[in-house]
Parts: sequence; C-alpha cells; structure tokens
Amino acid sequence: MPLMDYLNRQRKFQEALRDERLHGFVVAHPANLRYLCGYTGSNGLLLFLDGRKTFFTDGRYTVQAREQVSGARIVISKGALIKDAAAMLGKLRSAAIGFEADLTTVAAAEQMRQFTPKRLRWKPTSGLIMRQRMVKDAQELKLICAAVQLGAEIYSEALRFLKAGVSEIEVASRLEYAARRGGAEGMSFETIVAAGKRGALPHGRASAALIPKRGYVVIDSGVILRGYCSDMTRTVHVGRVASVERTWYNAVLEAQRAAIAAVKPGAVTGEIDEAARSVLRKAKLDRYFTHSTGHGVGLEIHEPPRLGKAQAEKLEPGMVITIEPGIYVPGKGGIRIEDMVVVTAGGAEVLTPVTKQLIEI
Amino acid sequence: MPLMDYLNRQRKFQEALRDERLHGFVVAHPANLRYLCGYTGSNGLLLFLDGRKTFFTDGRYTVQAREQVSGARIVISKGALIKDAAAMLGKLRSAAIGFEADLTTVAAAEQMRQFTPKRLRWKPTSGLIMRQRMVKDAQELKLICAAVQLGAEIYSEALRFLKAGVSEIEVASRLEYAARRGGAEGMSFETIVAAGKRGALPHGRASAALIPKRGYVVIDSGVILRGYCSDMTRTVHVGRVASVERTWYNAVLEAQRAAIAAVKPGAVTGEIDEAARSVLRKAKLDRYFTHSTGHGVGLEIHEPPRLGKAQAEKLEPGMVITIEPGIYVPGKGGIRIEDMVVVTAGGAEVLTPVTKQLIEI
Repeated sequence: MPLMDYLNRQRKFQEALRDERLHGFVVAHPANLRYLCGYTGSNGLLLFLDGRKTFFTDGRYTVQAREQVSGARIVISKGALIKDAAAMLGKLRSAAIGFEADLTTVAAAEQMRQFTPKRLRWKPTSGLIMRQRMVKDAQELKLICAAVQLGAEIYSEALRFLKAGVSEIEVASRLEYAARRGGAEGMSFETIVAAGKRGALPHGRASAALIPKRGYVVIDSGVILRGYCSDMTRTVHVGRVASVERTWYNAVLEAQRAAIAAVKPGAVTGEIDEAARSVLRKAKLDRYFTHSTGHGVGLEIHEPPRLGKAQAEKLEPGMVITIEPGIYVPGKGGIRIEDMVVVTAGGAEVLTPVTKQLIEI
Repeated sequence: MPLMDYLNRQRKFQEALRDERLHGFVVAHPANLRYLCGYTGSNGLLLFLDGRKTFFTDGRYTVQAREQVSGARIVISKGALIKDAAAMLGKLRSAAIGFEADLTTVAAAEQMRQFTPKRLRWKPTSGLIMRQRMVKDAQELKLICAAVQLGAEIYSEALRFLKAGVSEIEVASRLEYAARRGGAEGMSFETIVAAGKRGALPHGRASAALIPKRGYVVIDSGVILRGYCSDMTRTVHVGRVASVERTWYNAVLEAQRAAIAAVKPGAVTGEIDEAARSVLRKAKLDRYFTHSTGHGVGLEIHEPPRLGKAQAEKLEPGMVITIEPGIYVPGKGGIRIEDMVVVTAGGAEVLTPVTKQLIEI
C-alpha cells in the first residue's frame, strides 16, 4: 500500500487557506478527513489554525486515531467535537475561520456560532478541499487503478452467473461476494443489475426480478478498495439481439468513444458531454439520454468535475472521470457503457480493462 | 410486502406542520422521502404547501417516481429541484416554510433563500419527521422483524467459516453473501469482524488480519431489507476462554440484560444507559465502556433516540432500539453484545433470536 503523503496535502491546503485569507478551517467531512490526515472513522474534526493542526474524535476512535492520523495533535473529546474545537478558537482575538458550506448542515453551523465568541468570523467556503482532491496524485492513481482492476474482475465473475431465469440479486450477490474476496471494503454504490424493461430505470438497483429470455441487461457496479472507488457499466444482451436494438447499442458505444476522444487537458466538461450527446442526437436517441455523461471519482463515488450540459470546468491531467452515456427507452429497456478515464498530459487513458463489444448470452 | 400507508403518514406530518404554524415544508433527506411518500431514489424533493404535496425529481427517476411516489403530484425538473420548488413558493404572498436544519447544508439553505422572494420566511426545524419516524407503525415493525431475522441467519452462516487462520474479511464476505442471497439490498453499515487485539477498536471493520488462535472476535453486522435496517453484535471466543476473560464476558452480558430489563414506556434513555453502565462499574470495567448503550434503528441505522449518558428522551411503545454495551481493553481485545429491542406497552421485546451464551470455537 503506497504511503500517502498527508503532510504534503496539508501543506498544499494551508497554502489555499492563505490565499483565501483564512486563519483557520474546520474539516469534518469523512472523505476530506481521510484525504488530509488518513483518518477513516465516522466521527472526526480536523482544525487548521495558523500553523497548527488538531484532530478531535471521541472515545470510540482513540486507538484508531492514534494509528491513522498524520500531522495533527489528537484530542479525545467527551462531547460534541466542535465544542472542544471552539474552546481553542475562543482564545483568539479575532479571526476568519472557514468551513465547508456544502458539507455542513445549518444546525452544525449554528452550533459553531453558538460555541464561539461573536468576534470570530465564520466564512462559508465551497470546494476548497475538493478542488485539491479533484486532481489525483500518483499514490491515489495507483489505488484507483487497483480498484478499477478489481471492479473489472468481479464483473467477469458476475457474467458467469448471468442467464435467463436467474434473479438480478443473484447476479449482484455473486459480483459483491467476489468484490469482498478480492479485498474490497464494500461497494461504492448499490449494485445495479437491471434486466429487460427494468433497464429503462437508469438507477435500477438489482431486484428480485428474473432475467428474461431476451433483452438487454445493464450491470453497473463499483468497489471501494483501500478507500478508493471504482465505477463501471457494461450492457449485455440475453438471446440474439435484433437489428434495431443492435443499432441502439452501437450508437451508445459510438457516443461513449466520441466523449473519450474529446478528453484532454483544457477540454471543457460541457463539451465532453456534448460530444456524446451529439452522436445520440444524430441517431435520434438523444431524448432517451436523460443524465449527464460522467463525473469525477476518487475517495467518493461522485466527485467533481461533473460532465453535464453547459458545465464549464476545464479538465486537468490527473483528474479521474467516468464516461457513461446511456439510453433508457420506457417499456423497452436500457443501454449504458461506462469506463473510468484518467486525464493525461497528452489526452486520456482508459483505465477500465474490459471489452465494449456487445456480448450475447 | 406490507403496503405502507403513506397518505396517513403525510396527514400526520401535516398536523405537525399546523402545530408548528408552518404553511409549507421542504423534505429532501432520502430516508424521510421514503418514509413519507415511498420514493427510494437518490435525488428528490417533497414540497408540502398548505394542503398540496408536490414531488420533484430529475429525468433519471421519471419511471421510478411514477411507480413509487404516493400522494403527491410529480414534477420532473431540468435543473436544481429546489429551483422548481421555489418557483411554486414564489407565488405566495407571504408564508413560513420549514426545512430540516440538521439535514440541510448551509449551501442548500442559501440556495433556497436565493431562489425565493425575501417575504418568504424560511424556518429551520429539527426532528419534525424523525419524531414521527421514531415510533414505528405496524407495517414498519413487520419489516424490521424480517430484517432482524435475516441478520440472525447470516450471523449463523458466518460462524460456519470463523476459525483461527481465516481472515476477518473472509468471514465478513461469507456473511454479506448470505445477506444478498437472503434478499438484502445491502448492509446497513460496514461489517465489523474484529479479532483478538483488533477487538479493542469498537468500530473495527473487517480487515485482512487473520483470526488468531486464541481470543475474542466481535462480529457486528446488519442488513437492509426492503429499506429497513437490522443491527446485531455477538462476541465469540476462539480457543478455550481463561477465567478472567470469561468474567469480562459475563459482566458485559449482565450489563446488557440489565439495560433490557430497564426498557419500558416512560423510561428515560439516560437511565437505560446507566443500568448497563452501573453493572460494568461494579465489575470495575466501566472505563472500558467508551460509547453509549444504544440507538434507534429503522430506515436508517442510527436514528433517535440515543441511549447515552444524561439523555432525557422518554421511551414510547413502538420505538425500536439497540442495546449494546461493550468493553474495549487496549492491547487485549473487545467484547460487545447487541440485540434489537422493541418497546411494548408492557416493557420490551427482544427481537434478535440468537443465543448470548458464550460460544467457544
């Protein structure tokens, strides 16, 4: 397991705080704690204050915090973590302290204000840590590749059990069992196995429904391996595919390839989406493409950037994204093809090592 | 599957809104959406406005919303759901609209304010829906019992594979595979299999560590079955248990039984906690009991009430809680015993159908 360079991440974040003219910052979101200091528990708070870093947790995590947390003094709190953090902040004459507006509830923000003197200015911020996380470092890319590899292996395992008459859940359970045996901590989202008409539900979690004799089956799954998520979708056909349905598959595949071809540093996320969408428009299938083309992946399954209509983020080397156009025809079924892709200096590298040729089962 | 009486739940909630003098209310938390209208997708917003109810979601969930949502008109939004909801609210002359302060981010609350005219008063509220969810109705109790039953079965399955030299993850993967085959949508939290010294981590998720030749193994797991969570912990001993360690086990078991004996309508949550804690205090083990005695369970794995020190909630018939004292001795290991319990008119009924006698493996 590559040793994460938490101190470097903290240094970089502290530079961002200086740029934002913040004296301090409160981090409480689990994925951000893991990213910045290595802590994987459910309750924690990392306080940046000038040069110092203090990590607060409760008694359940004493041992774990000591094992995991890098670069911060550890405080075990008896009550609300923010209360102990506030006690530290309360000693300041005046300061601007940042917090994550899109990851902090109204109630928690209110608590922060209650526990600290009025002269303290709480500054809502957005995406400061996420902006840093969006570009993966070399250690993260290694872990992501390992997760993607396992994600591919369990898909092959699931295919061994997929046939008409088997329930969607049976397929999902084989896939998830293989994930666990492969070392996954868990799945990065509820496994989707959506057969026949259920394929028209873009988020059709595996159900007790049986796989019909003929039709497409969408399989979308991902693992969490050493904290990092994978995400892939393939669509197979049970029975021989008729020519119209094959046309649909080819259109989605062409759309997916067009989007991948558009991925490169400086490319705008909305343009990647448009690259996929325009292919489906030409095939008169764009009205069935009801979601965006992809999203970032890392410690969380859905991270920025979002590759949707009119999104204006520019891609940078090191970003890891999904490319996953799909069509959902009510009453008929669905087709989606999804790879994970890393933005490289020269363009894009597809990480998902699984064929996209249509498989008939 | 029992048909949920969503309309009745909505009526009850509307009464609460009247009591709070709110003209409207915005619900966006997934478990609350599921509870109030049956929707199980990831993106949704239910707007109560005077007598009317409107459900907003995006294009991915068109089919699903039509299949699932009870008692509300469905609107498929192109952009942020709150924007469409706000357009509806913007027509009001003046009104007080509630939202969930502990489930709404600062950024989302700011968006709500931006999209609506200033004359609209946004009222932060806390626990309005949760208070209703805390007391389970008959349909919910049926589903919870089914989840607890499956949770018990998969534990027995896991025990078949638990022995010295096997990895914690192997045990967890067998358990989770059985859960899926038993119909679970997933696990209600990351399965804990913490063997030997790792047992001193109260939240020791199953790792690649091998089960040692001698020592306690804590197994804490739960399923999600038709939306409802189960939660149980048992601790077994690999090899013959020495007399000191047996004393520890007996103390935890006695503490757990004392807490269950204290459960009845009107009992105060802090007293239940104290019932367990005082047993461990007498055994001079209370300093190793570093968490609270239990919590509510339902659509979510951690719900109110919390059974911790100085908590003042009064139990009511229909509440479903865990009773789970434990001790964690650094460098030695841990012991936790956890049942799910429903508060009945006469006292308590233990739902978890698994022996608490110490098993040596």
